[in-house]
Amino acid sequence: MALTLAALAKTAQAQLRGDPDRLIDSVATLQDAHPGAISFLANPKYRAYLETTRASAVILDAENAGLCPVDCLISDNPYLAHARVMAALYPEPRYPAGIDGSAVVDPSARVAPTASIGAQSFVGAGAEIGEDVIVGPGCMVMEGATIGAGSRLVAMVTLCHGTVLGRRCLVHPGAVIGGDGFGLANDAGRWVKVQQVGRAVLGDDVEVGSCTSIDRGAIEDTVIADGVKLDSQVHIAHNVKVGEHTAMAGCAAVAGSSTIGSHCTIAGGAGLTGHIELADHVHVSGATAVTRSIRKPGVYTGTVPAIEHADWLKNFARLRHLDDLARRIKSLERELAALRQQHDKAGD
Amino acid sequence: MALTLAALAKTAQAQLRGDPDRLIDSVATLQDAHPGAISFLANPKYRAYLETTRASAVILDAENAGLCPVDCLISDNPYLAHARVMAALYPEPRYPAGIDGSAVVDPSARVAPTASIGAQSFVGAGAEIGEDVIVGPGCMVMEGATIGAGSRLVAMVTLCHGTVLGRRCLVHPGAVIGGDGFGLANDAGRWVKVQQVGRAVLGDDVEVGSCTSIDRGAIEDTVIADGVKLDSQVHIAHNVKVGEHTAMAGCAAVAGSSTIGSHCTIAGGAGLTGHIELADHVHVSGATAVTRSIRKPGVYTGTVPAIEHADWLKNFARLRHLDDLARRIKSLERELAALRQQHDKAGD
Amino acid sequence: MALTLAALAKTAQAQLRGDPDRLIDSVATLQDAHPGAISFLANPKYRAYLETTRASAVILDAENAGLCPVDCLISDNPYLAHARVMAALYPEPRYPAGIDGSAVVDPSARVAPTASIGAQSFVGAGAEIGEDVIVGPGCMVMEGATIGAGSRLVAMVTLCHGTVLGRRCLVHPGAVIGGDGFGLANDAGRWVKVQQVGRAVLGDDVEVGSCTSIDRGAIEDTVIADGVKLDSQVHIAHNVKVGEHTAMAGCAAVAGSSTIGSHCTIAGGAGLTGHIELADHVHVSGATAVTRSIRKPGVYTGTVPAIEHADWLKNFARLRHLDDLARRIKSLERELAALRQQHDKAGD
Repeated sequence: MALTLAALAKTAQAQLRGDPDRLIDSVATLQDAHPGAISFLANPKYRAYLETTRASAVILDAENAGLCPVDCLISDNPYLAHARVMAALYPEPRYPAGIDGSAVVDPSARVAPTASIGAQSFVGAGAEIGEDVIVGPGCMVMEGATIGAGSRLVAMVTLCHGTVLGRRCLVHPGAVIGGDGFGLANDAGRWVKVQQVGRAVLGDDVEVGSCTSIDRGAIEDTVIADGVKLDSQVHIAHNVKVGEHTAMAGCAAVAGSSTIGSHCTIAGGAGLTGHIELADHVHVSGATAVTRSIRKPGVYTGTVPAIEHADWLKNFARLRHLDDLARRIKSLERELAALRQQHDKAGD
Repeated sequence: MALTLAALAKTAQAQLRGDPDRLIDSVATLQDAHPGAISFLANPKYRAYLETTRASAVILDAENAGLCPVDCLISDNPYLAHARVMAALYPEPRYPAGIDGSAVVDPSARVAPTASIGAQSFVGAGAEIGEDVIVGPGCMVMEGATIGAGSRLVAMVTLCHGTVLGRRCLVHPGAVIGGDGFGLANDAGRWVKVQQVGRAVLGDDVEVGSCTSIDRGAIEDTVIADGVKLDSQVHIAHNVKVGEHTAMAGCAAVAGSSTIGSHCTIAGGAGLTGHIELADHVHVSGATAVTRSIRKPGVYTGTVPAIEHADWLKNFARLRHLDDLARRIKSLERELAALRQQHDKAGD
Repeated sequence: MALTLAALAKTAQAQLRGDPDRLIDSVATLQDAHPGAISFLANPKYRAYLETTRASAVILDAENAGLCPVDCLISDNPYLAHARVMAALYPEPRYPAGIDGSAVVDPSARVAPTASIGAQSFVGAGAEIGEDVIVGPGCMVMEGATIGAGSRLVAMVTLCHGTVLGRRCLVHPGAVIGGDGFGLANDAGRWVKVQQVGRAVLGDDVEVGSCTSIDRGAIEDTVIADGVKLDSQVHIAHNVKVGEHTAMAGCAAVAGSSTIGSHCTIAGGAGLTGHIELADHVHVSGATAVTRSIRKPGVYTGTVPAIEHADWLKNFARLRHLDDLARRIKSLERELAALRQQHDKAGD
């Protein structure tokens, strides 16, 4: 696909400087671009590549436009403009409507005529597949699950029974939505399963990464609101609520019954304990454990940075004696004060 | 399904206070219950909802029964009673015995006549599927794997060759049992694979969560004992032994050749290094790294709690100077003692 | 299969001491071996089992050979010799060439005649499957993916569209290669997806563990070099480059656009933040967060070891006051120096 710069400027809601009829056929990084490609500058650390880029055009902000040796699209938010240009130049693949001959669809399932049901897939009793939905190869859509219009299960996705997926969702391979939560009662040392009868309910425009698991609720539903984006290997436990437009990066995890506000970001490998609440606009840093509710927007961190092993050996062993160190400081302060007083008296 | 309170009291092994013939059709939380539902009070923080609940009955302990405005089931362990009521009101779905037309079952596999083999599934050569087993859609049961009576693979589960699953196990989608362990010898900088020829052997009543992986043993088996419960995204490496009735929450992981005792709990995101042993009744807190054997029952923690980022910046940078701080305290103590001695002498 | 000790010595490139015609049919640990088995001693902590082993032969180094009561294979690298003996005694299973009747292969896919395409699998349009490749049951090989000669997808593996897998690779169940990276632009609080059009490109001799995810690149490719070994539940984000013969253990993760050198090891549960670089021969300890580039080979650690909960309570609470403690030490040092000066003056 090739589009003119004028068309891309319109798509990107950006201001065009240069030849409106120039054809652009691809997107590339500044350093690897070839003629015909458009590039972008959103991170200042790549500015050095701007001067020598072979791209035919660059998306950037007004401040950097002066340095741009080629045509450009000027935007206040170049990364967003880039996202829109990507969507225009690399549209989602189309799949033919209809049910693949190898798919198994229960007679009681309702599949919209415009939906595409891929090879080796399964659609269980009472499931509902909306208009323009793509169920890719090897997906299992269990009994009573529903998929809103325009959503896509890429491949090898499991929607457990009764799972609700909104419209325009995108779910990557290996994701499991609606598996049982971890509900156990203890009977004199033995675990007794607590049936998990809530559902996993996802809103519109939710993205779920590869190998991510979202457990169904115990009694109430696990709820993922509109616009939430979950990266790969994320885990959402039962009864969790995730607010609108919150994003969670790879390997992040939320334990049971916690509630996350809207517009939060949870960085990679971070974890939230159960039964806590995060306000809106809370940002949790990578590899951070959140152990209590956070009521105030802001950035929260508990990352322990790696150091050379020899330094670690001598420093981290002290961690378990911190309390002792603190007491000794207190004691030194007291003694020193006493000594000073004596001294001052002696000096009188 | 609806059951009388009398029937539920019997199931729950609880004492009934109220109308034995009252029909109960569902379970709900105290705050969301409607008439016809039974609720429960197991966590004191929900006690405030008891007075105004619209539930027809509540499961609780004797201490709280006095506050209950409706019928109740009184139990020393209300959460366990709740689990039993859930099981009665929400029985596991039944699947028809027999092999789905789309399933592929090797002629040499032995499938009990009461077993249900779902759509798009595969049962390899020499596999054995016991009575009343449910192999859900899209499951791969590889060569020689065996599944004990009454077990269920929900969907999209892989049992690698030779894996042994006991009776009444429940395995959720995306779980992989018996994949190769990580065995590598180093040949002048290049890794040479060590064939993994042990098996993964799971006892009875084991539950395995979504996207959980249990690797096969290198030479000996990886062994998961009776009654073990593993949540979603858990990883068990090769040669690991997990003792009876131990539970591991989401994203917990155990490195190779470690042994965990019985009745342990490993909270979410916790990790054990390889070649260590945990005694029975050891409880590891969330996001905690266990780096050496634990011989004594108890609770062990290494969680680093998140704080505001600005606080983190100034405090955590000190971590790598802890040893220096400790030495300076020591030195201050020495100097102060010397000074005091001098002073005392001077004061003589 | 049984092989003579002479044959195994040759395979293992080890020196034989004992009966060259002795038949060996299996490998066992020193403590569990029975006659007919060969064992190995690579870790000194198992030396105690050598004297009483019932193995027919043992692989060990020259230093320990003197203690060996049975025949032995002597090698400078007993674990490597063991790996070679394992490969000889436990060869990879052979699968019949050809396409299973239940597989779905697009007419435009090219499948080598010696390749084996398993039950319930899917091979999409334009995919290329090389000689002797094994695509196990339930694997999804999407459009345009290519698999080099001799590689094996064990079962339930997803290769997303355009993924490139080299020769002799081994991919375990639940692995997802080439899923979308986590690319999002923010539009006034709403996330806009950035199309991910790079690929995941894996070299030769790469192993990918169960439930491991390797995301495709955003524009450029995600690249896993020759000989890289990834354990189970590992996550590799978009644009990451992993150098030759680097190994990453279970649950390790690398955030987007980071580059790892050759011959590195990343231990279990360790995580790298995005946009950083690790030099060759960097070793990261378990449960360690790497938050900045590492330019120097060596071992790096940030593990926080678990302690008894009561100790943790009093010590870790001090962590957030470390800066205050450091300032108080500084202040004590100043005051003490001043006092000493005064004192010395007074003593003049």
